[in-house]
Amino acid sequence: MCEAVGHDNPDAGLEPIGPRDQVIDMTGFTRQIPDGDNRERDVCAACGHIDYQNPKVVVGAVVVSGTAVLLCRRAIEPRKGYWTLPAGYMEHGETLEEGAAREAMEEAEAAIAIDGILGVFNVARIGQVQVIFRARFAEPDRPFHAAGPESLETGLFEWDDIPWDEIAFPTVRWALNAWRDRGEGALGHPAGNPAADPRGVHRITPVGPAA
Amino acid sequence: MCEAVGHDNPDAGLEPIGPRDQVIDMTGFTRQIPDGDNRERDVCAACGHIDYQNPKVVVGAVVVSGTAVLLCRRAIEPRKGYWTLPAGYMEHGETLEEGAAREAMEEAEAAIAIDGILGVFNVARIGQVQVIFRARFAEPDRPFHAAGPESLETGLFEWDDIPWDEIAFPTVRWALNAWRDRGEGALGHPAGNPAADPRGVHRITPVGPAA
Repeated sequence: MCEAVGHDNPDAGLEPIGPRDQVIDMTGFTRQIPDGDNRERDVCAACGHIDYQNPKVVVGAVVVSGTAVLLCRRAIEPRKGYWTLPAGYMEHGETLEEGAAREAMEEAEAAIAIDGILGVFNVARIGQVQVIFRARFAEPDRPFHAAGPESLETGLFEWDDIPWDEIAFPTVRWALNAWRDRGEGALGHPAGNPAADPRGVHRITPVGPAA
Repeated sequence: MCEAVGHDNPDAGLEPIGPRDQVIDMTGFTRQIPDGDNRERDVCAACGHIDYQNPKVVVGAVVVSGTAVLLCRRAIEPRKGYWTLPAGYMEHGETLEEGAAREAMEEAEAAIAIDGILGVFNVARIGQVQVIFRARFAEPDRPFHAAGPESLETGLFEWDDIPWDEIAFPTVRWALNAWRDRGEGALGHPAGNPAADPRGVHRITPVGPAA
């Protein structure tokens, strides 16, 4: 019997994970190179299921209202109680932009308008690519937000009021820094990983807004 | 028994697919909302395997030598015999840049140096995100390239010599157009889908360099 229920990385650590991340029992899986492939994969000896460990796409947005940014306090592990951007796994069949808008609605009940790509980040340790947009509220004069099921609360924060000691994930800090660097100006080339962590493998980053 | 051997989209059509794309037998799968999830997934009634249809990341590069671009003629279906950029599925544990460099080596035996992100394309119909870089040969004075196992041949093409009638996928055309628009200049914001196909759902595109 194939036990690959939720075949995501169980070592997801400090990065955003959701219900689909479950520790999987790899008993019965062996390392094999499938026909036509060129590298070893985990293959279930019982049923032949190939557990391709595809990187996953996380989409999110720095949603700006005036000079403030929308953050959500996480209601779920990991990093429950810490602040994050509205972001989550992209779903099959949607575009990146649609995914970012969906996440803002799900996590912060916020209707947003996408501006453009603010950052593209690698988190190689857990096989993630994060595409973070700059966005505004769809109705700028009515920047409604409220906690969705995965959030304890939501808030609009001025830069100096961002709870830097309580930020959930390094990539949140990277995206906020990219927003600060660009302000209201042209987005230009997307921000990438900071020089100190070019592959996104560090679990612990210094507290504070510096990358 | 779980038949989800290769749980990718069998309807991959004109987009790059590799050995991991196999038609899967969904007999025995039912649509269920797993615990803690908020949408229906295909769940194997026999073993509980959840067939998450995560979007996949394709990484590739427009590899430039002087005013010419590196193309590969595909040795595998789909679109065998048609020309494409060196590109393929990102692997778990690598960065986007590492993936693009790996694909250039695998498909064109080319050692490349990444410049930056040229385009980020949605192909929602088949659940793909494509991140295409602009790159150069690692040794610009020695732009070595040769057909890898998945290529029939490789070539450096001046713009006017690009075999537009024999381009494998719409995204190849989009990326080449983005390269033309930027030339050797600053990359700026990544190119996205053309206005005529904002979600990447069209199978057939007009022949020719126009988006």
